[in-house]
Amino acid sequence: MKELIQELRNFAEERDWNQFHSPKNLSIALTVETAELLEEFQWLTEEQSRKLDQDRLNRIKDEIGDVMIYLILLSDHLSIDPISAAFEKIEKNREKYPAQKVRGTAKKYTEL
Amino acid sequence: MKELIQELRNFAEERDWNQFHSPKNLSIALTVETAELLEEFQWLTEEQSRKLDQDRLNRIKDEIGDVMIYLILLSDHLSIDPISAAFEKIEKNREKYPAQKVRGTAKKYTEL
Amino acid sequence: MKELIQELRNFAEERDWNQFHSPKNLSIALTVETAELLEEFQWLTEEQSRKLDQDRLNRIKDEIGDVMIYLILLSDHLSIDPISAAFEKIEKNREKYPAQKVRGTAKKYTEL
Amino acid sequence: MKELIQELRNFAEERDWNQFHSPKNLSIALTVETAELLEEFQWLTEEQSRKLDQDRLNRIKDEIGDVMIYLILLSDHLSIDPISAAFEKIEKNREKYPAQKVRGTAKKYTEL
Repeated sequence: MKELIQELRNFAEERDWNQFHSPKNLSIALTVETAELLEEFQWLTEEQSRKLDQDRLNRIKDEIGDVMIYLILLSDHLSIDPISAAFEKIEKNREKYPAQKVRGTAKKYTEL
Repeated sequence: MKELIQELRNFAEERDWNQFHSPKNLSIALTVETAELLEEFQWLTEEQSRKLDQDRLNRIKDEIGDVMIYLILLSDHLSIDPISAAFEKIEKNREKYPAQKVRGTAKKYTEL
Repeated sequence: MKELIQELRNFAEERDWNQFHSPKNLSIALTVETAELLEEFQWLTEEQSRKLDQDRLNRIKDEIGDVMIYLILLSDHLSIDPISAAFEKIEKNREKYPAQKVRGTAKKYTEL
Repeated sequence: MKELIQELRNFAEERDWNQFHSPKNLSIALTVETAELLEEFQWLTEEQSRKLDQDRLNRIKDEIGDVMIYLILLSDHLSIDPISAAFEKIEKNREKYPAQKVRGTAKKYTEL
Protein backbone atom coordinates (compact mmCIF):
# COMPACT_ATOMS: atom_id res chain seq x y z
CA MET A 1 0.00 0.00 0.00
CA LYS A 2 2.77 2.46 0.97
CA GLU A 3 4.55 1.58 -2.25
CA LEU A 4 1.39 2.23 -4.22
CA ILE A 5 0.94 5.64 -2.62
CA GLN A 6 4.54 6.54 -3.49
CA GLU A 7 4.11 5.33 -7.05
CA LEU A 8 1.00 7.45 -7.51
CA ARG A 9 2.69 10.53 -6.06
CA ASN A 10 5.60 10.09 -8.48
CA PHE A 11 3.26 9.52 -11.40
CA ALA A 12 1.39 12.77 -10.74
CA GLU A 13 4.54 14.78 -10.04
CA GLU A 14 6.35 13.58 -13.17
CA ARG A 15 3.40 14.85 -15.19
CA ASP A 16 2.81 18.01 -13.12
CA TRP A 17 -0.78 16.91 -12.64
CA ASN A 18 -1.23 17.88 -8.99
CA GLN A 19 -2.71 21.17 -10.17
CA PHE A 20 -5.73 19.15 -11.40
CA HIS A 21 -5.86 16.91 -8.35
CA SER A 22 -7.98 18.94 -5.96
CA PRO A 23 -9.96 16.67 -3.63
CA LYS A 24 -13.11 17.79 -5.44
CA ASN A 25 -11.75 16.72 -8.82
CA LEU A 26 -10.37 13.44 -7.46
CA SER A 27 -13.76 12.66 -5.99
CA ILE A 28 -15.35 13.30 -9.40
CA ALA A 29 -12.80 11.03 -11.07
CA LEU A 30 -13.49 8.32 -8.49
CA THR A 31 -17.20 8.52 -9.29
CA VAL A 32 -16.58 8.37 -13.03
CA GLU A 33 -14.37 5.30 -12.69
CA THR A 34 -16.85 3.57 -10.37
CA ALA A 35 -19.57 4.06 -12.97
CA GLU A 36 -17.32 2.55 -15.64
CA LEU A 37 -16.99 -0.47 -13.39
CA LEU A 38 -20.75 -0.60 -12.89
CA GLU A 39 -21.20 -0.40 -16.67
CA GLU A 40 -19.66 -3.88 -16.93
CA PHE A 41 -22.52 -5.27 -14.82
CA GLN A 42 -25.42 -3.16 -16.02
CA TRP A 43 -27.24 -5.61 -18.30
CA LEU A 44 -26.15 -8.79 -16.56
CA THR A 45 -28.43 -10.64 -14.17
CA GLU A 46 -27.10 -11.08 -10.66
CA GLU A 47 -26.57 -14.75 -11.52
CA GLN A 48 -24.49 -13.84 -14.60
CA SER A 49 -22.46 -11.41 -12.49
CA ARG A 50 -21.37 -14.34 -10.33
CA LYS A 51 -20.02 -16.26 -13.36
CA LEU A 52 -18.04 -13.82 -15.45
CA ASP A 53 -16.04 -14.83 -18.50
CA GLN A 54 -12.32 -14.05 -18.63
CA ASP A 55 -12.65 -11.08 -21.03
CA ARG A 56 -15.05 -9.29 -18.79
CA LEU A 57 -13.02 -10.15 -15.69
CA ASN A 58 -9.97 -8.57 -17.31
CA ARG A 59 -11.88 -5.38 -18.07
CA ILE A 60 -13.26 -5.36 -14.52
CA LYS A 61 -9.76 -5.76 -13.08
CA ASP A 62 -8.70 -2.71 -15.08
CA GLU A 63 -11.63 -0.71 -13.74
CA ILE A 64 -10.99 -1.84 -10.15
CA GLY A 65 -7.42 -0.63 -10.67
CA ASP A 66 -8.72 2.80 -11.71
CA VAL A 67 -11.10 3.03 -8.77
CA MET A 68 -8.30 2.05 -6.37
CA ILE A 69 -5.95 4.63 -7.91
CA TYR A 70 -8.35 7.53 -7.35
CA LEU A 71 -9.41 6.32 -3.91
CA ILE A 72 -5.76 6.20 -2.83
CA LEU A 73 -4.95 9.56 -4.44
CA LEU A 74 -7.92 11.25 -2.77
CA SER A 75 -7.15 9.67 0.61
CA ASP A 76 -3.49 10.66 0.33
CA HIS A 77 -4.38 14.29 -0.44
CA LEU A 78 -6.56 14.35 2.69
CA SER A 79 -4.09 12.37 4.88
CA ILE A 80 -6.73 9.71 5.46
CA ASP A 81 -5.79 6.03 5.66
CA PRO A 82 -8.57 4.20 3.78
CA ILE A 83 -7.90 0.92 5.57
CA SER A 84 -8.29 2.48 9.03
CA ALA A 85 -11.34 4.34 7.75
CA ALA A 86 -12.85 1.01 6.68
CA PHE A 87 -12.13 -0.62 10.05
CA GLU A 88 -13.70 2.30 11.91
CA LYS A 89 -16.77 2.15 9.67
CA ILE A 90 -17.14 -1.59 10.32
CA GLU A 91 -17.17 -0.87 14.05
CA LYS A 92 -19.97 1.67 13.60
CA ASN A 93 -21.88 -0.81 11.45
CA ARG A 94 -21.55 -3.52 14.10
CA GLU A 95 -23.49 -1.31 16.49
CA LYS A 96 -26.00 -0.22 13.85
CA TYR A 97 -26.75 -3.73 12.55
CA PRO A 98 -26.29 -6.28 15.37
CA ALA A 99 -25.92 -9.76 13.87
CA GLN A 100 -28.63 -11.33 16.00
CA LYS A 101 -31.12 -8.65 14.95
CA VAL A 102 -30.60 -8.50 11.18
CA ARG A 103 -29.43 -12.06 10.48
CA GLY A 104 -30.79 -13.50 7.24
CA THR A 105 -33.57 -10.96 7.04
CA ALA A 106 -33.68 -9.67 3.53
CA LYS A 107 -36.50 -7.38 4.52
CA LYS A 108 -34.50 -5.61 7.19
CA TYR A 109 -31.65 -5.30 4.76
CA THR A 110 -33.69 -3.78 1.96
CA GLU A 111 -35.09 -1.27 4.42
CA LEU A 112 -31.71 -0.01 5.60
CA MET B 1 -5.41 -5.50 4.10
CA LYS B 2 -5.71 -9.28 4.66
CA GLU B 3 -7.15 -8.57 8.08
CA LEU B 4 -9.68 -6.18 6.58
CA ILE B 5 -10.80 -8.78 4.03
CA GLN B 6 -11.26 -11.35 6.81
CA GLU B 7 -13.21 -8.88 8.92
CA LEU B 8 -15.55 -8.08 6.04
CA ARG B 9 -16.12 -11.77 5.29
CA ASN B 10 -17.01 -12.41 8.93
CA PHE B 11 -19.30 -9.41 9.04
CA ALA B 12 -21.29 -10.59 6.02
CA GLU B 13 -21.41 -14.22 7.17
CA GLU B 14 -22.57 -13.37 10.69
CA ARG B 15 -25.50 -11.53 9.11
CA ASP B 16 -26.12 -14.03 6.30
CA TRP B 17 -25.79 -11.16 3.82
CA ASN B 18 -23.82 -12.95 1.11
CA GLN B 19 -27.10 -13.69 -0.65
CA PHE B 20 -27.35 -9.94 -1.40
CA HIS B 21 -23.68 -9.57 -2.28
CA SER B 22 -23.66 -10.50 -5.94
CA PRO B 23 -20.88 -8.65 -7.80
CA LYS B 24 -23.58 -6.65 -9.58
CA ASN B 25 -25.11 -5.48 -6.29
CA LEU B 26 -21.72 -4.75 -4.73
CA SER B 27 -20.83 -2.64 -7.75
CA ILE B 28 -24.08 -0.69 -7.30
CA ALA B 29 -23.33 -0.19 -3.60
CA LEU B 30 -19.84 1.02 -4.46
CA THR B 31 -21.31 3.60 -6.85
CA VAL B 32 -23.84 4.78 -4.29
CA GLU B 33 -21.16 5.24 -1.63
CA THR B 34 -18.87 7.05 -4.04
CA ALA B 35 -21.67 9.50 -4.82
CA GLU B 36 -22.21 10.11 -1.11
CA LEU B 37 -18.53 10.99 -0.90
CA LEU B 38 -18.86 13.29 -3.93
CA GLU B 39 -21.86 14.95 -2.27
CA GLU B 40 -19.51 16.35 0.38
CA PHE B 41 -17.64 18.27 -2.32
CA GLN B 42 -20.47 19.21 -4.65
CA TRP B 43 -20.97 22.88 -3.81
CA LEU B 44 -17.42 23.60 -2.69
CA THR B 45 -14.94 25.34 -4.94
CA GLU B 46 -11.79 23.38 -5.71
CA GLU B 47 -9.97 25.79 -3.41
CA GLN B 48 -12.39 25.07 -0.55
CA SER B 49 -11.98 21.35 -1.15
CA ARG B 50 -8.27 21.72 -0.38
CA LYS B 51 -9.01 23.33 3.02
CA LEU B 52 -11.72 21.28 4.68
CA ASP B 53 -12.91 21.84 8.23
CA GLN B 54 -12.76 18.99 10.73
CA ASP B 55 -16.48 18.18 10.65
CA ARG B 56 -16.46 17.67 6.93
CA LEU B 57 -13.20 15.73 7.09
CA ASN B 58 -14.78 13.36 9.60
CA ARG B 59 -17.79 12.76 7.34
CA ILE B 60 -15.45 12.26 4.38
CA LYS B 61 -13.42 9.72 6.33
CA ASP B 62 -16.64 7.79 7.01
CA GLU B 63 -17.54 7.84 3.32
CA ILE B 64 -14.03 6.76 2.28
CA GLY B 65 -14.44 3.88 4.74
CA ASP B 66 -17.69 2.87 2.99
CA VAL B 67 -16.15 3.09 -0.47
CA MET B 68 -13.18 1.00 0.67
CA ILE B 69 -15.48 -1.61 2.23
CA TYR B 70 -17.42 -2.19 -0.99
CA LEU B 71 -14.33 -2.06 -3.17
CA ILE B 72 -12.70 -4.75 -1.03
CA LEU B 73 -15.87 -6.86 -0.88
CA LEU B 74 -16.34 -6.72 -4.64
CA SER B 75 -12.68 -7.49 -5.30
CA ASP B 76 -12.75 -10.39 -2.84
CA HIS B 77 -15.83 -11.92 -4.51
CA LEU B 78 -14.01 -11.78 -7.85
CA SER B 79 -10.63 -12.91 -6.45
CA ILE B 80 -9.02 -9.70 -7.66
CA ASP B 81 -6.32 -7.95 -5.63
CA PRO B 82 -7.11 -4.22 -5.93
CA ILE B 83 -3.53 -3.20 -5.13
CA SER B 84 -2.08 -5.35 -7.93
CA ALA B 85 -4.85 -4.11 -10.21
CA ALA B 86 -3.81 -0.53 -9.44
CA PHE B 87 -0.11 -1.24 -10.11
CA GLU B 88 -0.95 -2.88 -13.44
CA LYS B 89 -3.13 0.06 -14.40
CA ILE B 90 -0.35 2.50 -13.57
CA GLU B 91 1.95 0.58 -15.92
CA LYS B 92 -0.60 0.88 -18.74
CA ASN B 93 -0.99 4.59 -18.00
CA ARG B 94 2.78 5.12 -18.14
CA GLU B 95 2.71 3.97 -21.76
CA LYS B 96 -0.44 5.88 -22.59
CA TYR B 97 0.67 9.17 -21.05
CA PRO B 98 4.47 9.47 -21.25
CA ALA B 99 5.65 12.11 -18.79
CA GLN B 100 7.68 14.06 -21.35
CA LYS B 101 4.70 14.31 -23.66
CA VAL B 102 1.92 15.33 -21.29
CA ARG B 103 3.93 17.19 -18.66
CA GLY B 104 2.18 20.32 -17.35
CA THR B 105 -0.16 20.49 -20.30
CA ALA B 106 -3.62 21.07 -18.95
CA LYS B 107 -4.92 20.93 -22.48
CA LYS B 108 -3.66 17.43 -23.12
CA TYR B 109 -5.06 16.37 -19.79
CA THR B 110 -8.51 17.78 -20.36
CA GLU B 111 -8.63 15.98 -23.69
CA LEU B 112 -7.93 12.52 -22.25
CA MET C 1 -41.57 21.93 -19.81
CA LYS C 2 -41.17 25.66 -20.54
CA GLU C 3 -43.04 26.39 -17.36
CA LEU C 4 -40.72 24.11 -15.42
CA ILE C 5 -37.64 25.84 -16.84
CA GLN C 6 -39.06 29.23 -15.83
CA GLU C 7 -39.91 27.96 -12.34
CA LEU C 8 -36.37 26.67 -11.85
CA ARG C 9 -34.83 29.92 -13.07
CA ASN C 10 -36.97 31.86 -10.60
CA PHE C 11 -36.14 29.50 -7.78
CA ALA C 12 -32.40 29.92 -8.30
CA GLU C 13 -32.60 33.68 -8.80
CA GLU C 14 -34.72 34.26 -5.70
CA ARG C 15 -32.02 32.51 -3.70
CA ASP C 16 -29.06 33.99 -5.59
CA TRP C 17 -27.83 30.46 -6.23
CA ASN C 18 -26.66 30.88 -9.82
CA GLN C 19 -23.16 31.53 -8.50
CA PHE C 20 -23.05 27.85 -7.47
CA HIS C 21 -24.69 26.60 -10.65
CA SER C 22 -21.73 26.22 -12.98
CA PRO C 23 -22.34 23.42 -15.50
CA LYS C 24 -19.63 21.42 -13.71
CA ASN C 25 -21.41 21.70 -10.36
CA LEU C 26 -24.82 20.98 -11.86
CA SER C 27 -23.41 17.86 -13.48
CA ILE C 28 -22.07 16.75 -10.08
CA ALA C 29 -25.45 17.39 -8.46
CA LEU C 30 -27.15 15.40 -11.23
CA THR C 31 -24.84 12.46 -10.53
CA VAL C 32 -25.44 12.65 -6.78
CA GLU C 33 -29.21 12.67 -7.24
CA THR C 34 -29.08 9.79 -9.71
CA ALA C 35 -27.16 7.73 -7.18
CA GLU C 36 -29.79 8.50 -4.53
CA LEU C 37 -32.37 7.13 -6.95
CA LEU C 38 -30.22 4.05 -7.57
CA GLU C 39 -29.92 3.57 -3.81
CA GLU C 40 -33.65 2.76 -3.69
CA PHE C 41 -33.03 -0.22 -5.96
CA GLN C 42 -29.65 -1.41 -4.74
CA TRP C 43 -30.63 -4.45 -2.66
CA LEU C 44 -33.80 -5.34 -4.55
CA THR C 45 -33.88 -8.12 -7.11
CA GLU C 46 -34.92 -7.09 -10.60
CA GLU C 47 -38.22 -8.85 -9.93
CA GLN C 48 -38.80 -6.83 -6.76
CA SER C 49 -37.95 -3.64 -8.65
CA ARG C 50 -40.91 -4.35 -10.95
CA LYS C 51 -43.34 -4.56 -8.00
CA LEU C 52 -42.60 -1.66 -5.70
CA ASP C 53 -44.69 -0.79 -2.67
CA GLN C 54 -46.24 2.65 -2.38
CA ASP C 55 -43.74 3.99 0.18
CA ARG C 56 -40.80 3.22 -2.03
CA LEU C 57 -42.60 4.54 -5.10
CA ASN C 58 -43.16 7.84 -3.31
CA ARG C 59 -39.48 8.13 -2.42
CA ILE C 60 -38.55 7.22 -6.00
CA LYS C 61 -40.87 9.90 -7.36
CA ASP C 62 -39.09 12.44 -5.16
CA GLU C 63 -35.71 11.31 -6.46
CA ILE C 64 -36.89 11.37 -10.08
CA GLY C 65 -38.03 14.93 -9.40
CA ASP C 66 -34.53 15.83 -8.19
CA VAL C 67 -32.86 14.21 -11.19
CA MET C 68 -35.21 16.04 -13.55
CA ILE C 69 -34.55 19.36 -11.80
CA TYR C 70 -30.78 19.15 -12.27
CA LEU C 71 -31.04 17.78 -15.79
CA ILE C 72 -33.25 20.73 -16.78
CA LEU C 73 -31.06 23.26 -14.95
CA LEU C 74 -27.90 21.95 -16.61
CA SER C 75 -29.51 21.84 -20.04
CA ASP C 76 -30.88 25.35 -19.61
CA HIS C 77 -27.45 26.72 -18.66
CA LEU C 78 -26.03 25.18 -21.84
CA SER C 79 -29.00 26.13 -24.06
CA ILE C 80 -29.58 22.48 -24.87
CA ASP C 81 -33.12 21.10 -25.26
CA PRO C 82 -33.02 17.67 -23.57
CA ILE C 83 -36.02 16.40 -25.54
CA SER C 84 -34.41 17.21 -28.89
CA ALA C 85 -31.16 15.75 -27.60
CA ALA C 86 -32.99 12.51 -26.77
CA PHE C 87 -34.64 12.34 -30.21
CA GLU C 88 -31.30 12.89 -31.94
CA LYS C 89 -29.68 10.18 -29.81
CA ILE C 90 -32.48 7.74 -30.68
CA GLU C 91 -31.78 8.35 -34.38
CA LYS C 92 -28.10 7.56 -33.85
CA ASN C 93 -29.03 4.44 -31.91
CA ARG C 94 -31.36 3.27 -34.71
CA GLU C 95 -28.35 3.14 -37.03
CA LYS C 96 -26.08 1.59 -34.41
CA TYR C 97 -28.51 -1.15 -33.34
CA PRO C 98 -30.75 -2.10 -36.27
CA ALA C 99 -33.83 -3.93 -34.95
CA GLN C 100 -33.46 -6.93 -37.26
CA LYS C 101 -29.86 -7.42 -36.15
CA VAL C 102 -30.13 -7.14 -32.37
CA ARG C 103 -33.72 -8.31 -31.83
CA GLY C 104 -34.18 -10.48 -28.74
CA THR C 105 -30.48 -11.21 -28.44
CA ALA C 106 -29.49 -10.76 -24.85
CA LYS C 107 -25.95 -11.63 -25.79
CA LYS C 108 -25.61 -8.82 -28.30
CA TYR C 109 -27.11 -6.46 -25.78
CA THR C 110 -24.78 -7.40 -22.98
CA GLU C 111 -21.85 -6.90 -25.32
CA LEU C 112 -22.79 -3.34 -26.29
CA MET D 1 -42.70 14.56 -24.37
CA LYS D 2 -45.57 12.14 -25.15
CA GLU D 3 -44.05 11.60 -28.57
CA LEU D 4 -40.67 10.85 -27.00
CA ILE D 5 -42.18 8.29 -24.64
CA GLN D 6 -43.91 6.57 -27.57
CA GLU D 7 -40.70 6.57 -29.60
CA LEU D 8 -38.77 4.95 -26.75
CA ARG D 9 -41.45 2.31 -26.23
CA ASN D 10 -41.33 1.42 -29.92
CA PHE D 11 -37.55 1.35 -29.93
CA ALA D 12 -37.44 -1.14 -27.04
CA GLU D 13 -40.28 -3.29 -28.40
CA GLU D 14 -38.79 -3.52 -31.90
CA ARG D 15 -35.63 -4.90 -30.30
CA ASP D 16 -37.37 -7.03 -27.66
CA TRP D 17 -35.33 -5.23 -25.02
CA ASN D 18 -38.02 -4.84 -22.35
CA GLN D 19 -36.74 -8.03 -20.73
CA PHE D 20 -33.58 -6.08 -19.78
CA HIS D 21 -35.46 -2.96 -18.77
CA SER D 22 -36.33 -3.69 -15.15
CA PRO D 23 -36.52 -0.48 -13.12
CA LYS D 24 -33.37 -1.60 -11.31
CA ASN D 25 -31.44 -1.95 -14.57
CA LEU D 26 -32.78 1.31 -15.97
CA SER D 27 -31.68 3.08 -12.82
CA ILE D 28 -28.19 1.63 -13.25
CA ALA D 29 -28.11 2.74 -16.88
CA LEU D 30 -29.22 6.22 -15.85
CA THR D 31 -26.33 6.40 -13.36
CA VAL D 32 -23.80 5.19 -15.93
CA GLU D 33 -24.93 7.79 -18.48
CA THR D 34 -24.89 10.56 -15.90
CA ALA D 35 -21.30 9.68 -15.04
CA GLU D 36 -20.38 9.82 -18.75
CA LEU D 37 -21.82 13.33 -18.79
CA LEU D 38 -19.85 14.23 -15.65
CA GLU D 39 -16.70 12.87 -17.30
CA GLU D 40 -16.87 15.74 -19.80
CA PHE D 41 -16.49 18.22 -16.93
CA GLN D 42 -14.14 16.35 -14.64
CA TRP D 43 -10.86 18.14 -15.28
CA LEU D 44 -12.32 21.51 -16.25
CA THR D 45 -12.45 24.40 -13.82
CA GLU D 46 -15.91 25.75 -13.09
CA GLU D 47 -14.96 28.76 -15.20
CA GLN D 48 -14.03 26.55 -18.16
CA SER D 49 -17.30 24.66 -17.76
CA ARG D 50 -19.15 27.93 -18.40
CA LYS D 51 -17.33 28.48 -21.71
CA LEU D 52 -17.34 25.17 -23.57
CA ASP D 53 -16.09 24.76 -27.12
CA GLN D 54 -18.39 23.37 -29.79
CA ASP D 55 -16.86 19.87 -29.85
CA ARG D 56 -17.39 19.36 -26.17
CA LEU D 57 -20.87 20.88 -26.34
CA ASN D 58 -21.79 18.34 -29.03
CA ARG D 59 -20.57 15.45 -26.91
CA ILE D 60 -22.42 16.86 -23.91
CA LYS D 61 -25.62 17.13 -25.95
CA ASP D 62 -25.27 13.44 -26.83
CA GLU D 63 -24.82 12.53 -23.18
CA ILE D 64 -27.77 14.67 -22.10
CA GLY D 65 -29.78 12.79 -24.71
CA ASP D 66 -28.76 9.48 -23.13
CA VAL D 67 -29.58 10.65 -19.62
CA MET D 68 -32.99 11.90 -20.79
CA ILE D 69 -33.69 8.58 -22.56
CA TYR D 70 -33.12 6.50 -19.44
CA LEU D 71 -34.90 8.95 -17.16
CA ILE D 72 -37.97 8.81 -19.42
CA LEU D 73 -37.81 5.02 -19.79
CA LEU D 74 -37.53 4.51 -16.03
CA SER D 75 -40.33 6.98 -15.31
CA ASP D 76 -42.54 5.36 -17.94
CA HIS D 77 -42.03 1.88 -16.46
CA LEU D 78 -43.09 3.24 -13.06
CA SER D 79 -45.94 5.40 -14.42
CA ILE D 80 -44.32 8.51 -12.97
CA ASP D 81 -44.43 11.83 -14.82
CA PRO D 82 -40.97 13.36 -14.32
CA ILE D 83 -42.22 16.90 -14.96
CA SER D 84 -44.90 16.65 -12.25
CA ALA D 85 -42.34 15.00 -9.98
CA ALA D 86 -40.03 17.99 -10.52
CA PHE D 87 -42.79 20.52 -9.80
CA GLU D 88 -43.74 18.70 -6.59
CA LYS D 89 -40.11 18.60 -5.51
CA ILE D 90 -39.75 22.33 -6.12
CA GLU D 91 -42.72 22.93 -3.83
CA LYS D 92 -41.07 20.89 -1.08
CA ASN D 93 -37.83 22.79 -1.62
CA ARG D 94 -39.61 26.12 -1.34
CA GLU D 95 -40.61 25.20 2.20
CA LYS D 96 -37.24 23.73 3.06
CA TYR D 97 -35.18 26.65 1.74
CA PRO D 98 -37.19 29.88 2.08
CA ALA D 99 -35.68 32.53 -0.20
CA GLN D 100 -35.38 35.18 2.53
CA LYS D 101 -33.49 32.76 4.77
CA VAL D 102 -30.95 31.27 2.39
CA ARG D 103 -30.57 34.14 -0.09
CA GLY D 104 -26.99 34.68 -1.26
CA THR D 105 -25.55 32.70 1.61
CA ALA D 106 -22.98 30.36 0.20
CA LYS D 107 -22.40 29.02 3.67
CA LYS D 108 -25.99 27.93 4.19
CA TYR D 109 -25.91 26.36 0.78
CA THR D 110 -22.76 24.37 1.32
CA GLU D 111 -24.23 23.07 4.55
CA LEU D 112 -27.42 21.66 2.95
